[in-house]
Amino acid sequence: MNTYHASIKVALRKNILDVQGKTVEQALHSMGIESIADVHIGKSVEMSVQAYSREEALAFVDDACRKLIANPIMEDFTIDIVQEK
Amino acid sequence: MNTYHASIKVALRKNILDVQGKTVEQALHSMGIESIADVHIGKSVEMSVQAYSREEALAFVDDACRKLIANPIMEDFTIDIVQEK
Repeated sequence: MNTYHASIKVALRKNILDVQGKTVEQALHSMGIESIADVHIGKSVEMSVQAYSREEALAFVDDACRKLIANPIMEDFTIDIVQEK
Repeated sequence: MNTYHASIKVALRKNILDVQGKTVEQALHSMGIESIADVHIGKSVEMSVQAYSREEALAFVDDACRKLIANPIMEDFTIDIVQEK
């Protein structure tokens, strides 16, 4: 059994308005930081996973994302998995 | 002037209890996904930056994080910057 570290990024689907991102962008501009644009805010989730292989760890994390962590109607997610030493 | 893409991860400092992460972990266990532990939930922020160099882009994003995006008392942040083609 190995230990893996999973990093998940959950973001709103591209065609859904990111109100929080827009608000942060406007706030940055009004603070004088004008060179920043296209701000998108999502969730970052880190976890450790016990599994026999990288594939099995990915399957556990994918299952967790689909069933609980991401909203499949409004959000997309990406998973990065590395084996812990 | 170049365009850079910045990915920021904002997470609670290690010694602060991550209640949201703990709740997700317990929910996963009660759903039968028991091999996942140490769940930590933070923010993921993506943005594009106009700057003359990678260093200048990093300075803009670091400034934005310190002044608005992260709470310096409770949160740590990491910044990844890549130049867009």
